[in-house]
Amino acid sequence: MRERSADAPAQQESAASDGKAPRTARGERTLRKILDAALEEFGEKGFSDGSIVGITSRARVALGTFYTYFDSKEAVFRALVKDMSAQVRDNVAPALEQSTDTLDGERRALQSFLEFVATHRQVYRIIDEAEFVDPDGFRKHYETTAERIAARLQAGKDKGEVNAIDSKLASEVEAWAIMGMNVFLGLRFGVWSKEDPEEVTRVANGLIRRGLEP
Amino acid sequence: MRERSADAPAQQESAASDGKAPRTARGERTLRKILDAALEEFGEKGFSDGSIVGITSRARVALGTFYTYFDSKEAVFRALVKDMSAQVRDNVAPALEQSTDTLDGERRALQSFLEFVATHRQVYRIIDEAEFVDPDGFRKHYETTAERIAARLQAGKDKGEVNAIDSKLASEVEAWAIMGMNVFLGLRFGVWSKEDPEEVTRVANGLIRRGLEP
Repeated sequence: MRERSADAPAQQESAASDGKAPRTARGERTLRKILDAALEEFGEKGFSDGSIVGITSRARVALGTFYTYFDSKEAVFRALVKDMSAQVRDNVAPALEQSTDTLDGERRALQSFLEFVATHRQVYRIIDEAEFVDPDGFRKHYETTAERIAARLQAGKDKGEVNAIDSKLASEVEAWAIMGMNVFLGLRFGVWSKEDPEEVTRVANGLIRRGLEP
Repeated sequence: MRERSADAPAQQESAASDGKAPRTARGERTLRKILDAALEEFGEKGFSDGSIVGITSRARVALGTFYTYFDSKEAVFRALVKDMSAQVRDNVAPALEQSTDTLDGERRALQSFLEFVATHRQVYRIIDEAEFVDPDGFRKHYETTAERIAARLQAGKDKGEVNAIDSKLASEVEAWAIMGMNVFLGLRFGVWSKEDPEEVTRVANGLIRRGLEP
C-alpha cells in the first residue's frame, strides 16, 4: 500500500491516512462527512473526550467505514487540523483576489477571516488543541499562514505599495505581527462576542496601514 | 473557613485554595516553591500527564504540605495560570515606567515581553493549555492584559500622544491587535527560535507607530 501511495500523487493530497485515499467521488463525499463530523465531535468535546464512535454516529457511517479512511483518532484529528488550515486559507483567497492593492488586500483578508470564524467558531478550539495533540500540524498551520502574508507583503514591497524596511527579519516580523493581530481579533470579536467585522477591520487596518505605507 | 476567608482580604490575594493561604513568611516561600515546581511539571508534561507527586518531588516537599495549600491538581493549575499572568504583568511594569511616551512604552513593553518569554518558555504552554483546563483563567488573562493596553492607549489619547479614532470599539480593537501581535512575536521569535528582541521590536513597533501617531 505504501508503494502504491508513493506512485499516486493524488493520494498524498488526501486527508485520509496513508494508502487509504478514496478512489471514487462517493468515497470523497464520505471522507468529507467524516471530517465535518470530527469537527463537531472534537469542537464540542475536545480531543480527549471525543471518540471515533462519536464521529461515526454524527456522520451516520459505520465504524468500518471510518477505518477505510483513517487509522486512528489521532490520524483523523491531524487530518482535521490540515483541513481547518486549508479552509482558513481558501476562505480568504477570493477576498484577496478582489483587492485593489496590498493594504486593501490585508483589510479584505482580515474582514473575511472575522466573518469566517464567526460562523466556524470551532476552528479555534481545533487549532489551539493541536498545540498539544498535533504540535507539528499546529506549527505548520502558523508557519504557512505567516509565509503567505510575508509573500503578499514582499509583493507589495516589489510594487512600491509597502514600505521596505532595512531589516532582514522585517517581512517575517511583520507577517507574524499581522497574523497575531488577526488571530486575537478573531477570538475576541468573532468567537467570544460578535462585533461588526467591517468596523473591527477598519480600526485594525488603520493601525497597520500607516505603518506599512511607503 | 469560607467565612474567615471573606473576612481576611489578604487571603483572597493568595494563590492558595480558599482558606489555605499561608500565614507566615516561611509558608509563603513554600507556596512559591510549589508554584515553581508546578510550572516545571505542567510545562514539561502538560496538565493531563503532570501529577501532584511530580510537583511535590520537584519542590522537595511532603505530599501533605501540598494539601496544606491546594485542594487538587486543578487548583494548583488555576493558581499557576494566575501566577504566570501576574508575572507577565509585573515583568513589563518596570519597562513601562522608563518610557518617554505612550508609543515608546509599547516598544519597551514588547521588548521586555520577548526577553521574558525567551527565558520563560513554559509560560506559553501553561496559558495555552488553560484554554482547555481553566477556560475562565485563560479568558481573564487575556481580558486583563488587553484592558491594561487599552488603558495605556487611552491615557496616550488624553495626552495627545495617540491618534484618537472616531469609533467606540477603537481602543479595545487596538489593544487586542497589539496583544495578539506581541503574543505571536513572542511565540515565533522568543520560544521557537531566539532572535534579537531589539530588532524584532524595532520592526513591530514601526508597524504600529505610524498608525497610532496623531
